[in-house]
Order: sequence, then structure tokens, then C-alpha cells
Amino acid sequence: MFREKDAETREFLEAAKACVEICKSSGVPLLINDRVDVALACDADGVHVGQSDMPAWEVRRLLGPGKIIGVSCKTPAQAEQAWKDGADYIGCGGVFPTTTKANNPTLGFEGLRTVCLASKLPVVAIGGINAGNAGSVMELGLPNLKGVAVVSALFDRERVAAETRNLRSILMKNAYSRS
Amino acid sequence: MFREKDAETREFLEAAKACVEICKSSGVPLLINDRVDVALACDADGVHVGQSDMPAWEVRRLLGPGKIIGVSCKTPAQAEQAWKDGADYIGCGGVFPTTTKANNPTLGFEGLRTVCLASKLPVVAIGGINAGNAGSVMELGLPNLKGVAVVSALFDRERVAAETRNLRSILMKNAYSRS
Repeated sequence: MFREKDAETREFLEAAKACVEICKSSGVPLLINDRVDVALACDADGVHVGQSDMPAWEVRRLLGPGKIIGVSCKTPAQAEQAWKDGADYIGCGGVFPTTTKANNPTLGFEGLRTVCLASKLPVVAIGGINAGNAGSVMELGLPNLKGVAVVSALFDRERVAAETRNLRSILMKNAYSRS
Repeated sequence: MFREKDAETREFLEAAKACVEICKSSGVPLLINDRVDVALACDADGVHVGQSDMPAWEVRRLLGPGKIIGVSCKTPAQAEQAWKDGADYIGCGGVFPTTTKANNPTLGFEGLRTVCLASKLPVVAIGGINAGNAGSVMELGLPNLKGVAVVSALFDRERVAAETRNLRSILMKNAYSRS
């Protein structure tokens, strides 16, 4: 997901277009954080919105049926609304404390479990997840918990590519052990 | 024009929808600053973009032919580009110093005149314009200078409605004397 809270729109759009090129050539879908206009202009694969961004039903109306919409949810009620609004998945967290989002309440395993059990949509866990705890998140055994989202776990590290491979292998091992 | 640089998207959209209602009932067109997604979602009459926002041709592609697009321009080259990009008008300034936009270079009457003479589009003068100097701006006698845009001239005053009536009467007097 591409996220630029403080960039000017033109700079954000130019970076997003560059990311779309890279992702398309690798077959990786790219979602834009919050900005439906940027997603439309760069033909991204979708948009991820938080509870203080545009409502998901409005995003769906602007993007059309073919795009991916994700919604950050902390409660069963928010997960239900995201499903009603036509979202494709929800992000749930922060599971652990994180410096990426200040003042973001931590849900812990129990909060994550509660939202996963209530959600009719696939869930991606987010917030403080890294190579040291990603396995324990996936081992919660929640059928609709389909993955994790990370920022610091990769981008606060010196060797980003090596950390990415390491995290990927942990997640793939878990996926195989479940199938 | 509705402008919210620091608001969250949902808050911005809700305020924009409220403004659209008020403007529609008064027959006043409403343009949204920068955010094409907000303009689409609230069905505003158009969007105004600066040089670091989305390029006007991209805004036109997203909004379609029926909406109004304005572009802030400081130079003849920018005015030419706005016309090529399919904009409907340009904003030109800051004509005078203003506290609304910090670090914004002041063009003065000469800069405004240069841009107006080069522009194939109607021009709205902006930047430090108020009841005390609006007349002198319009009296420059530039045929495509069609109006002024103000923020502080009204909203830094205690009696906003009275100031608005006063400024309007100055501008209308000038419009009549030119026709």
C-alpha cells in the first residue's frame, strides 16, 4: 500500500505512478492509502481507507466494482459496516504497539480475534508485526485472517530486502502448515 | 472555493457536502480546492488546483467536460499550460502580500498584468485583496480580469456579512462602469 500523509498531491501522484509501473511489472497489486483521486489518476488496483477517510460505499461508487477496497477496523461493528459498504477486506489493529501510528490503541490478540470472528470479510492484521511475532499471529488459527501488513518491520531495518525475504518465509511456512 | 489543507478526508467531505447544499439552494457554484475525490463525492461544480496539485488535464479526465477547473498561475507559461490542459479559468497572485499563504511571492500589479495579457483564459486576481484595494485591481482595465478571490478580507473581520456586502458593492460598481 502506498501512503503519503504530508505530500503535495502532484508529488504523491508522481510517486504513485512510478509504484504502479513497478508493481504491474511484478504482478503485485498496489493499493493507495486514502486518496481515491490519486488511485483513479494512476489506475491503482484499489484504495485502503481508515475510519476518518471517505466511507467505503462512497469509495466503491467512485472506483467502480473492479477495484479492491480495504477498510481499517477495530471493532465488530466497523467490520460489519465495511462488509455492508462493499469493501473487499479489512485491516485490523494495531495488534501490537507501533511507532508508525502514534496514539493508536493496541487491540492485542484478543481484540484481533474478536474482530476476525465477527468479520464476513478477510482480515489483514496490522500494527507492530515483525519477523519475531508474525508466526504467533498467524498461528491464532483464525480462518479469515489471511495475512499481515507491516511498515517498520521492513523499513526500519538496514537490510530491507533480506528482512522481506525472512518475513516472507515465515509467513509462507505458516500458510503451508495450515493447508 | 472550499479549502481544507489539514482536515481528515471524512471531515472534509462532510463539510463539503454541507456547503454544496447551501450553495445549490443559493445558485452559487462551489469549487473544491485540490481534492478531486472530495469534489466527485459531493458533486461539487468543480476543482481549483495549484501548481503542486494534480495537473489540470488529469483533473479534466477525472471530472469530465461539464465541471469547472481553475488553476493558480504566476507566469505566462503556467497560464498557457492551464489553457492547453483544459482549464476554465486561472487564479493569479498573490497580487499583494497576505498572511493566508506564507512564503507566497507577491506579483504586484505588473505581474498580474503580464499574466492577464498572456492568458487565453479568464483571470481571477488573488492575494491580499480587500475592500481598500479591490477597486484599483479591477481598474487596471485588463479585459480578461473577471474578478477577485478573497479570504482574509472577509474572514479576518468581525462582521463577515457586512464586509461581504461592502466588497460586493465595490466590485459591482466597477463592473457597471466597464460595461
